[in-house]
Amino acid sequence: MTSDSRWDHLLTDVGLATLADNGHPYGAVEHGAIGWRDGRITFAGPLADLPAAPDALAHHVRSLPGTWITPGLVDCHTHLVFGGERAREFEQRLEGVSYEAIARAGGGIVSSVRATRVASEDELLAQSLPRARALLADGVTTLEIKSGYGLEPDAERRMLRVARRIGTVLGVDVRTSFLGLHALPPDYADRRGDYVSLVCDAMLPSLAGEGLVDAVDAFCEGIGFSPAETERLFAKARSLGLPVKLHAEQLSDLGGAALVARYDGLSADHLEWTSDDGVRAMAAAGTVAVLLPGAYYALRDTRPPPIDAFRAHGVAMAVATDLNPGTSPLLSLRLAMNMACTLFRLTPEEALRGATQHAARALDLHDRGTLAVGQRADLAVWNIRHLAELCYWIGGPLLRETWIAGERRPA
Amino acid sequence: MTSDSRWDHLLTDVGLATLADNGHPYGAVEHGAIGWRDGRITFAGPLADLPAAPDALAHHVRSLPGTWITPGLVDCHTHLVFGGERAREFEQRLEGVSYEAIARAGGGIVSSVRATRVASEDELLAQSLPRARALLADGVTTLEIKSGYGLEPDAERRMLRVARRIGTVLGVDVRTSFLGLHALPPDYADRRGDYVSLVCDAMLPSLAGEGLVDAVDAFCEGIGFSPAETERLFAKARSLGLPVKLHAEQLSDLGGAALVARYDGLSADHLEWTSDDGVRAMAAAGTVAVLLPGAYYALRDTRPPPIDAFRAHGVAMAVATDLNPGTSPLLSLRLAMNMACTLFRLTPEEALRGATQHAARALDLHDRGTLAVGQRADLAVWNIRHLAELCYWIGGPLLRETWIAGERRPA
Ligand SMILES: [Zn+2]
Ligand SMILES: [Zn+2]
Repeated sequence: MTSDSRWDHLLTDVGLATLADNGHPYGAVEHGAIGWRDGRITFAGPLADLPAAPDALAHHVRSLPGTWITPGLVDCHTHLVFGGERAREFEQRLEGVSYEAIARAGGGIVSSVRATRVASEDELLAQSLPRARALLADGVTTLEIKSGYGLEPDAERRMLRVARRIGTVLGVDVRTSFLGLHALPPDYADRRGDYVSLVCDAMLPSLAGEGLVDAVDAFCEGIGFSPAETERLFAKARSLGLPVKLHAEQLSDLGGAALVARYDGLSADHLEWTSDDGVRAMAAAGTVAVLLPGAYYALRDTRPPPIDAFRAHGVAMAVATDLNPGTSPLLSLRLAMNMACTLFRLTPEEALRGATQHAARALDLHDRGTLAVGQRADLAVWNIRHLAELCYWIGGPLLRETWIAGERRPA
Repeated sequence: MTSDSRWDHLLTDVGLATLADNGHPYGAVEHGAIGWRDGRITFAGPLADLPAAPDALAHHVRSLPGTWITPGLVDCHTHLVFGGERAREFEQRLEGVSYEAIARAGGGIVSSVRATRVASEDELLAQSLPRARALLADGVTTLEIKSGYGLEPDAERRMLRVARRIGTVLGVDVRTSFLGLHALPPDYADRRGDYVSLVCDAMLPSLAGEGLVDAVDAFCEGIGFSPAETERLFAKARSLGLPVKLHAEQLSDLGGAALVARYDGLSADHLEWTSDDGVRAMAAAGTVAVLLPGAYYALRDTRPPPIDAFRAHGVAMAVATDLNPGTSPLLSLRLAMNMACTLFRLTPEEALRGATQHAARALDLHDRGTLAVGQRADLAVWNIRHLAELCYWIGGPLLRETWIAGERRPA
């Protein structure tokens, strides 16, 4: 724990989950203090080690006993920009209407595509902002947002622009992923190859050229896109210098985890059906396993991802909401952490690292996710006595406030 | 829908889920208004049917387009008064420590009993209030609280007094249940009969005499109390004129549902193992089935209660949090509604009726749980476009405000 006597804000009498390697679970410091200057952490450690502060800064010092501070949460997998919602479809399924009948009536992902295409950029922003605000209200300070409900150039562009605007409006870092290969749009039902060409050769280069794409994603699945189609996209992405990630092995094992690892993928996401070979390939490539227990819960899945294999091979596990209108209308990353513990048997420390440190890595962000000198001052302050409470309580308002790049946001 | 032109508050341009029998799902009124006077509803119906208001009252009229109003939520089964929490135990289990090892180290319910016994009344209140506030923050306007972590006269009294004080402090109706037969306290390990006598012959009459007991409950289970012990308690309760309810058939079928029905029980709760005979007995007695999906979720149970049989026999189903430190640290009734849909396949309308209308009935309260003239003005105002969204979104701040007996509480 190095220290620096210069800070413009200092919080004292707090517990810190630094996630640093200090010999304690969570890298915990029980009686701690954390200070920062110009948005970067300049001190994080035991209160007793704190250098004396110049008197002039005393009014920026706050004592917050009874709280723990963690890195701000990072939601590294969301589809939160979309038109409409699918609550009525959720209701119909519970009333006994079959998936087929819902699809015949224009439901399913097609209805989200329709509602997204007809929405103007401002409408899409207005509809999506409350969902981003919900995530922030439970401790998120950085989030990823995917395209993939437009499935045509203009609508995909609109989604990515809205994602960027959410970042500006809320003062939060938004990382975008281009997910043109999310589903085959109905208008290309008989022209599968043409759609893949459109995505790889036209949409991706043009959207990337506009600075709207931080990473490239695809849905590699029997009902999505094949490994060969995915690989064509990844080759193009890498030629443009963009990192890749993949929706892999949610419903079956097509070898997606190994595929994305071959392209130095940032992450493979879902992974319920990932084989030992896939896990090994991810370990070798340093690809993060992004666990999405909200979809597992909502779909009443019974096959959890191979958590023990990830542990055994040293694959970093992240936890995310997968916030989307069809399979995971989950508005709280902390609730995803509880589900990761309850349903996937992660420990609370693994779940917290998964929603901070490893989620940041899955987004290729190396300046956040832990509390260490030099890192961004992205903090979540919680009204709890023990860190395990973050995963133990199901729902409930535990957040006191967050700080994003050193700026305070009340809960 | 009758109407009354006298009101001291009126909300217009709202959707109403009246839950009345008006031929629409949810008893819905799409373009509605609701007014009340002296805490009682005086108008609830279509905006077009609203009598003209005297000008003098115009400043009490608010237009709330884009919202739906439901009856305030009623949480009819909680154990929210307790000392400590069991987050560390939750963590230990996920770290691979066995239940037995945790029990040997003084964990499990015994640790909650210990922490509850050592807490003063003020400490217990301070620890429990945030949990009650969390429920209210997600739409609850009436709640039940059980004793059962004291298991000795003074500590059980303290719990029930704290439950009453929570009602006073928060301005919310709290219904108390005496749950002396929750677990056999360690100090009576060899004197089972003595403890049952203490509960039935001393604690219950004395606490009831102090006005602290609205209903009597027990945990009828192999690891709890037998049907014969439960029956002894129920006979005493009825002789004191107190209604009964029962934790029945969570882990096995001991015939608890039929037993509590025989004593005209208000509710039987949990019910994962209830037989058809049990369901029939409940139907005949008008006993409400209280579903507790939070415990089912947290325990990773795989056997849901017999929902279809409840439907077939016309047994009213309520939904509650079971908020407790061991098996359901669930701080949101709306999340319990989502779980009831996702895990038990209730429809969103059943889940909403379960957390309002039928929950009120399970507490023997007949002046709330629907929006009708003469009922208490207990309302929840939600920022949603469709009522199914209440169950569809997992987490997230949907509540705009509640009204309790006509008094406003911002979310
Ligand atoms: Zn996804
Ligand atoms: Zn209970």
